[in-house]
Amino acid sequence: MFSPAAATPLGTLTGIGVGPGDPDLITVKALAALQRATVVAYPRGRPGQAGWAEQILGDRIAPHQRRLPLDFPFVTDPAQLQRAWQQAAAQVWTLLAQGQDVVFACEGDLSFYGTFTYLAEALERAHPEVVIHRIPGVCSPMAAVSALGIPLTKQGEKLAVLPALYSLADLEQTLTWAEVVVLLKVGSVYAQVWPVLKKHQLLHRSWVVVRASQPNQEIYRDLDRFPQLDLPYFSLMVIRSA
Amino acid sequence: MFSPAAATPLGTLTGIGVGPGDPDLITVKALAALQRATVVAYPRGRPGQAGWAEQILGDRIAPHQRRLPLDFPFVTDPAQLQRAWQQAAAQVWTLLAQGQDVVFACEGDLSFYGTFTYLAEALERAHPEVVIHRIPGVCSPMAAVSALGIPLTKQGEKLAVLPALYSLADLEQTLTWAEVVVLLKVGSVYAQVWPVLKKHQLLHRSWVVVRASQPNQEIYRDLDRFPQLDLPYFSLMVIRSA
Repeated sequence: MFSPAAATPLGTLTGIGVGPGDPDLITVKALAALQRATVVAYPRGRPGQAGWAEQILGDRIAPHQRRLPLDFPFVTDPAQLQRAWQQAAAQVWTLLAQGQDVVFACEGDLSFYGTFTYLAEALERAHPEVVIHRIPGVCSPMAAVSALGIPLTKQGEKLAVLPALYSLADLEQTLTWAEVVVLLKVGSVYAQVWPVLKKHQLLHRSWVVVRASQPNQEIYRDLDRFPQLDLPYFSLMVIRSA
Repeated sequence: MFSPAAATPLGTLTGIGVGPGDPDLITVKALAALQRATVVAYPRGRPGQAGWAEQILGDRIAPHQRRLPLDFPFVTDPAQLQRAWQQAAAQVWTLLAQGQDVVFACEGDLSFYGTFTYLAEALERAHPEVVIHRIPGVCSPMAAVSALGIPLTKQGEKLAVLPALYSLADLEQTLTWAEVVVLLKVGSVYAQVWPVLKKHQLLHRSWVVVRASQPNQEIYRDLDRFPQLDLPYFSLMVIRSA
């Protein structure tokens, strides 16, 4: 019996982390995968802007490569997100089924709060036969402490990463337990976090890094000087209580 | 007045993370820094073995480059460690003072439990004028989850990293708080951790990865089958309770 599906071998999807912003913080392995790909997918940027991973890759996406921006809307509604992930998966599957190899690029490391996870999970649910490779990358906390010239963790220090702050009690509890705390997306909660750091006498042991490893990187230290800071969304704080 | 010290500009020390084991998980930036260096330093291996970072770099260290293995003894005595770090710093300083540029390579990311921190801190204490650059790298937890084909963290999940397990109460407490827990160096405590995972019904949500990203990588899943495992020191466990 003739089966047209069997005639074309499936393409593979390779997720790559392109690093925190400096284009040369991509790994040799991710760069090679990028250069081999027929199609380069990435999360679409906000209206009128290139996506962040696309900006980091810059002209490393060759003119002959097809660009595939995928919609990962900036919303929190689970149903809307699920629909977007399923739609992105369907777009990628169409290409894989045609035998095209697709690279999906995301900023930082692809497994550390990366959009790649949602695409991969939606694909695996809809098409369990999909072949997915993953190439890890440098994540933003590592780039931030390198910029600060301090360690993230040493010896027996415990590390906690809070991707968003739901309550100040969360932070207080974490500080009793972990020697090192990283707060991602600290911009919107900075003014609430500051009094907690003051109370625990941690203002001189805390740092804020904006756009780590990028040319317009900003660093804030000695935070007792900054009860308020107007920070972009993707800012992070490192607290070293040890 | 003639000052011979002023005649030679100081060399710079650049710390690079060379990634978790796969030689191509080095970044483009770290590779360029390596290739520019006069001297390539790294932690000396156990007797009769090349150091781990040296093995990862392999023949990327060019014949004309000077190799400088530094002693970071596998001991816990603070005084002995301090002496070793000071001695390593003195060796590096001698070269920097001669105007030579030194790269110090460590496995994974240099700021994430990396030996580079101890070298840098000893140098900064002894010679505050030292010029140090840091190039972040891919750390082992990121490589482990990429190998497993699972995310490390997504959406609002909190992450805890325990570098060593001092008490099972520590682990129990962490599990109540963090959706994702990474245990480094799990080899020596695996048999004690297993009953805790069983009690919390997490054996099917836990994975062990040995030598992530290397050719002899090993993965253990469905841990209910493995109440005991004979694991090397550098094994890690990922627990995803969400």
